Amino acid sequence: VSSVRFDPSLILVTDPVLCGARDLLQVVVAAVAGGATMVQLRDKQATTEELVAQALRLLGACRSAQVPLLLNDRIDVALAVRADGVHLGQDDMPLPLARRLLGAEAIIGMSVRSEEELRRAESEGASYLAANGVWATPTKTDFGQPLGDDGLARLAGVARLPLVAIGGVHAGNAGQLRRAGAAGIAVVSAVMAASDPEAACRELRVAFAAR
Amino acid sequence: VSSVRFDPSLILVTDPVLCGARDLLQVVVAAVAGGATMVQLRDKQATTEELVAQALRLLGACRSAQVPLLLNDRIDVALAVRADGVHLGQDDMPLPLARRLLGAEAIIGMSVRSEEELRRAESEGASYLAANGVWATPTKTDFGQPLGDDGLARLAGVARLPLVAIGGVHAGNAGQLRRAGAAGIAVVSAVMAASDPEAACRELRVAFAAR
Repeated sequence: VSSVRFDPSLILVTDPVLCGARDLLQVVVAAVAGGATMVQLRDKQATTEELVAQALRLLGACRSAQVPLLLNDRIDVALAVRADGVHLGQDDMPLPLARRLLGAEAIIGMSVRSEEELRRAESEGASYLAANGVWATPTKTDFGQPLGDDGLARLAGVARLPLVAIGGVHAGNAGQLRRAGAAGIAVVSAVMAASDPEAACRELRVAFAAR
Repeated sequence: VSSVRFDPSLILVTDPVLCGARDLLQVVVAAVAGGATMVQLRDKQATTEELVAQALRLLGACRSAQVPLLLNDRIDVALAVRADGVHLGQDDMPLPLARRLLGAEAIIGMSVRSEEELRRAESEGASYLAANGVWATPTKTDFGQPLGDDGLARLAGVARLPLVAIGGVHAGNAGQLRRAGAAGIAVVSAVMAASDPEAACRELRVAFAAR
């Protein structure tokens, strides 16, 4: 029985490149202290062994703050370290298989770009949705046009599950996303590349809460 | 309950590049018809979704020949499609975690390069071992010196589990590996790049059986 709280309002997505020479654990600890409500470990280059080791390190810090730790894509690593769930893209494990492997209690986030993807994710058992690519961002270049706040509002208008905005989110545009209907924001650069990740999270919380 | 037979004498390791424009399923069907006794799906570039789809296609062909299908590294995919096991390298999922996730019946192969790695794999629950890099090979370049048949013989001398030779294996050197103590051979190029994968497997079987 996990004592973590599910709250997708400020999700930190890790990035090994943006983390640079800093220790990822220290960045995560600071972000959680600053108010990050979930952490998603994402590292497409790491070996499975490295991912397991990194996830185990982050899990202690997340658990002591009751913050869920999710793995990007890698259900094997999530199962191995008993993390709280996974975040899936459209080319990761199909959601019904992921739900069967992880069980009913796991948190499963699903990235969506269209109303069709959103409806399928809701019917297939996602826990929350991420509107992927609201703004252009250098950390994810495999998308077409950014959704913008119009596209986000259109998806938020039909979503029954919490819908989180990701892609180029920072303190300067977070309020706009809240007004467009986002239940939360997911950030990479805005925290991973910040000189003070704790302060960056506090600013994001204030900016997102402001209407 | 799986009706596959565990027999590591001729393992086909797939390769998407060497497969070229041919359909991987056709190559696998031909290889199994020619006497391949296990198939390991290995594709480090594929998305998880692609791996799941490919594994499901191969599984039918393997099952109807009672040949086990293993996934390279990816326990999530093995669990999702109910494959027969995985093959792990030293930087993949730690073996005790893999065994816990897959269960006692799963086939877990473990690559080893030294007596120390061999002993650890045997104590941690491997089903078979692969002496990795017996000869130099273009499909795996991240090793130091090839083990050679001397290195293989040294490992075979202390192994309690079946020890398979991999790395630059072809019909011309398979007999030598048998004499050095290998319980089987694992091949990539020798079958994946062959114009007739079925005939290539038949030749490998004959060459390996010859003393």
